[in-house]
This record gives sequence, C-alpha cells and structure tokens, in this order.
Amino acid sequence: MSQNKQIIVKEIPKGQLGNEHFEIQTVVMPTPGDGELLIKTILMSIDAANRAWMQGATYREAVKPGDVMHTYSIGEVIESKSDSHSVGDIVAVEAGWSEHVVVNAKRAQKMPEMASLSHLISVFGIAGRTAYHGLVDVGRPVEGETVLVSAAAGSVGGYVGQIAKSLGCRAVGIAGGPEKCAWVKEELGFDDCIDYRAPGLFKAIHAACPDGVDVYFDNVGGEILETVLFQMNDKGRVACCGAISQYDGSAPSGPRNLPGMVVVKRLRMEGFIVTDFAKEAHRATKELQQLVQSGKLKIQEDIFEGLERAPDALIGLLAGDNRGKRMVRVAPDPA
Amino acid sequence: MSQNKQIIVKEIPKGQLGNEHFEIQTVVMPTPGDGELLIKTILMSIDAANRAWMQGATYREAVKPGDVMHTYSIGEVIESKSDSHSVGDIVAVEAGWSEHVVVNAKRAQKMPEMASLSHLISVFGIAGRTAYHGLVDVGRPVEGETVLVSAAAGSVGGYVGQIAKSLGCRAVGIAGGPEKCAWVKEELGFDDCIDYRAPGLFKAIHAACPDGVDVYFDNVGGEILETVLFQMNDKGRVACCGAISQYDGSAPSGPRNLPGMVVVKRLRMEGFIVTDFAKEAHRATKELQQLVQSGKLKIQEDIFEGLERAPDALIGLLAGDNRGKRMVRVAPDPA
Repeated sequence: MSQNKQIIVKEIPKGQLGNEHFEIQTVVMPTPGDGELLIKTILMSIDAANRAWMQGATYREAVKPGDVMHTYSIGEVIESKSDSHSVGDIVAVEAGWSEHVVVNAKRAQKMPEMASLSHLISVFGIAGRTAYHGLVDVGRPVEGETVLVSAAAGSVGGYVGQIAKSLGCRAVGIAGGPEKCAWVKEELGFDDCIDYRAPGLFKAIHAACPDGVDVYFDNVGGEILETVLFQMNDKGRVACCGAISQYDGSAPSGPRNLPGMVVVKRLRMEGFIVTDFAKEAHRATKELQQLVQSGKLKIQEDIFEGLERAPDALIGLLAGDNRGKRMVRVAPDPA
Repeated sequence: MSQNKQIIVKEIPKGQLGNEHFEIQTVVMPTPGDGELLIKTILMSIDAANRAWMQGATYREAVKPGDVMHTYSIGEVIESKSDSHSVGDIVAVEAGWSEHVVVNAKRAQKMPEMASLSHLISVFGIAGRTAYHGLVDVGRPVEGETVLVSAAAGSVGGYVGQIAKSLGCRAVGIAGGPEKCAWVKEELGFDDCIDYRAPGLFKAIHAACPDGVDVYFDNVGGEILETVLFQMNDKGRVACCGAISQYDGSAPSGPRNLPGMVVVKRLRMEGFIVTDFAKEAHRATKELQQLVQSGKLKIQEDIFEGLERAPDALIGLLAGDNRGKRMVRVAPDPA
C-alpha cells in the first residue's frame, strides 16, 4: 500500500490525442493532512470534455504537461483526517487518473448507497443528469415536438432520446455507422437514427424529422450543427452540451450559418454544464429514478477494466467507439 | 394622379449590392378593391434586413427579380374601400418602394398622432423597439453589467447603448472609423466606443470592457462576434439581432469558436425580431417615451429625400455610412 499508480499527461496534443501523450508512473502513496481524506478510486468517468481541458482553461483550469490527468471519479474513503467523513464512505470527487488521491474533505461529496456504484456515474451521475437538465431545463421540449440529438449512442445522447420519448416527443438520433444507428433504434427505442457518415445528411435529417427540428441537443458542433440549423423550426432551441468535433484537432471551423440562422429563425442556443444545476439535482435524480423503475430508461454502461486502460478509453471515446456511458473501473465495488 | 413610380429589384445580387440591381419604373396608379386601401407612402424604413430578404426566405418570403422592393413604411390613406379606415388615417404597412400602394385594410396598422411621423420609424418604431426588446427582454442586463453593442452608430445600436446606460450598465459600442466612434461617445453618451477598422480589436475590447462582456447585442456576426465571444463572461447573453457581415456577399464564414464558447461559458445566444414582441409593444413604447422625455434617449434620424434615392440609402447602409435610423422620405408629413 505504499505505492500509488497514476497517469500523467506527458504532452499536450497538437492534433489527435494518442497513447503517446500519456505516461503511467508509480509514486509514493499520498498521505492526508488535517481536513483531508485519502480516497481509493473505484470508477473514473471518461468524457469528451476531458479532451477539451487539454486545449486550455474551460470552466475548470487547463490540464498541463506533467499533471495527473483530471477526472471525475467515485471512490471510497480509506483514511480520514476530517470529522465530516468516515472510513468506508463512498464519495464523488474531482480528482485524477490515479489509484489513490488525497482531497480536501469539503470537496468530497458523499454518495447514497447504490446497487452498483457505476450508476452514480451513468444514469444518476453526470451523464444522466446532463441529459436531463440539458433537455428538460435548457431545450424545454413540449409534447409532440421533435427532439434531435447527436452522439445518440454516447453517454448522454442515449438518455436524451429516451427522456424525450417519455415526454411524448419524437426522438431522433444521429450516430456514426449503421450498427450504432440500429442499436439506438432497437435497444434505446428512438423513433429514428441517422448515420452521419453516410452521404446525404441533410436529406436524411429531413426524412427523419418531417416536421422540422424543435430541440437539437448538440454534442458535436461543426458541420452537423450547421446542417441541423437549416432544419430547425422557428423558435427552436439548441442545447449546447459539447463540441466534440472541435476538441480533437487543431483547426476548428465554425458553422457558416451562425449567427444567421439564429437571427432568421429566432433560435435560442444555450450552453450549460451539469454543475450549474446543483440546486435542481434532487428533482433530476427523482425523475430519473422513476423513469428507470418504470422501464422507460435503460441504463447503458461501457466500462473499461483497469487504470492503465484510461487513455484507450478516452482515445476511443473521441473516435466515437462507445455505446452508453464510458468509464474506467480502477477497483471493485466494496463488498 | 394616374401614374405611380416604384422601384423594382432587377436582379438578385450574387455579391455586393449596387444600383445596377434596381430599376425605377412608372406604372398605372393601382386602385383599391373591396376591403382595400390606397395609401400614399410618406416614409420608408431602410434596414440591413432588406438585403437579407434578397438572399432567400427569412421570416418573410424572399424578394424575387421583378418584385417591387419590400419595405416597412408609414403612409396616409387617400382612398378607403373598408369601414375600418378613413381617408387621412396614418398607417404603418409592409409594402414596397412605391409612391402609392394598395393593401388589405387588415394589414394597415393605424398609428397615433405624432409631432413628426419619422419618430414612428425611429425611436417609437422598429429601430427603437428592436433595441428595447432585444436588450431588455433578450439580453436582460442587470445594473452594473457591461453591455457591448456592434453597429453602435446605426439605427438600433445607438438606442441600445442609451437604454443600457439608463439601466445602470456600462455601455460600450463598436463602430467603423474614429469619427463615428467619437460621435457615439460624445453625442450618444456611451462610456466607450471601439473602432473595429483599427488593428487590435481583441485588445481594444479588453480595454473598454475590463470586467468582460455580460451582454453582447450583435448586429454584425462574423469576425467581430468571434472576437467578442472570447471575452464574454460566464452566463453571458448574446442578443442576435442581425448578421450584416453575412448579408452582402456570397461566402459567409462562421465564428470558429461556435459552439465551443457557448458550451464552455454557458452562454445564451438568442435571435429575435421585433414582431415577436407585438404583445409587449405598449410597454416598450411607454418606456421609450419616458426615456425621451427625461432626456436619456436622443432621437437620431438619417433621412434621404425622394423615392429614387432608396437604393443609395440601402447600399450606403450596408457599407455602414449611416448615423441613426435611416429612412427615405417619399412625401412630406400631412399638414
């Protein structure tokens, strides 16, 4: 127990992220000071935003060369120097790709008991809550409207479509490749799913959304956003969740119809991150639980085993190989 | 009185608009049918949006070759075939660049008496109400925030900054050339005004908005929008009023940081047109009247004399030569 494995960012990628940008290192086990906790990492969330953090400061500080890669993770308190937490507590922390971390107890949020801790990262975690708040509070669809979501086979998109269905909306996804699209329709129950890698994206959206698009939940930005904007209905809403097409490369290009389409169609494009909705977390969790219990929301998880597989998990995610919420298991759930 | 002069669109411009795209023609005076009115045009509003109408369908149908150029105008009823309107009524209509027009009486909105009818187009008309609703209802600035507005010497922008000042905000403009900027500061009372034609736009915005930008009232889109987005504060709002930089050319380019900045900073970008706020028109007019009466809002008008000068008025507007609300006077106010 005196050693601690972790993964650092060796170099900030100029273009596409690869294994060469990471390095595993073994360091001395950290020890908590007053008011701090030693936490054993159990599960780490792998998100497209991780890549954006390498591009510069976002809503959090940038990841720099030599830093342990940042992550959001679920762990178990194994040593406490704070009255607020006990050994054995399960907590959520913003930490790093590391078997063990020391954090200020104030930054370790106690988590409720859960049949599987992975649900704290998937449906009741960032992924599910991002889908919920982004769709319900930002996109604000009403019954009968058409909701289109990109990265529909991804961690967030799959929940967006299922929640949209539960609200009485037509749910249409965009995903890469015919197999993913079939999975989105058959497994997740979307009304339709468009393969953006096939030619004729504009026509395909038009066919799948014959009444136009009222809410577009955008995970990708770029050309897909540009194509969708032309097919938004007046007063449509774009919930801007991510711009994955802009993260993993050095020369992003912007939709040529912005802000033109926003003006002409009086669209609302609004960005959000789930932590902005901390006060509403209770409502989101409750509604997500009800949807899961009623069978309207299927929990999709895509788990890589072992800390050392974290780079592969992120690189693959950026290439679009995931189905459902991607995470890395560093240690088993406590018995 | 048996002839009627009007200006038609001869050809849709592929690039920059010029006099060659218009033609004056003299036709037979139209006669109103049942339920219609014959209206003598007094003033025509000249707006950047006129150019956008030539590019295709927007919130109204496209202007096609051979059409009389569309406009919003103020006129006097000189013959009525409707019980709803009398000869002598002053009305606002969506009509054309024409000395006389026949319109359905239902589409002629009666206007209140006014010392100068031009105020119905400037401060109490589209320009003032666009500024009011776009700033107050879309941008929603609060006291102490920084409001930045492009085309600040234009018909709408000048009112935006003055209204922002009245709300206790820091008002900063962007305009073309040192003389316009001086006019915006000295005549309109903005706190600062940035010359976008001078080098170093990013630094200039940073200097004029040291606390960042909370509300950006965007009339131009393009590179200026891109530069401003980098300096928006978290949860900032972009009221998308127009994209004049995209209208008068054939190859628009989009801000490369969209939707990235919207995601990272959780911005809200929202388009609007003044007619969406028809139900709130009374509130806007009342508040604008109070601002004028208290001396907080100066009325700026830029009037071309004569129907045949309408093309010049629009071409010049697109090149940015106006100061205040541009319009064309076709006939004098009735005595």
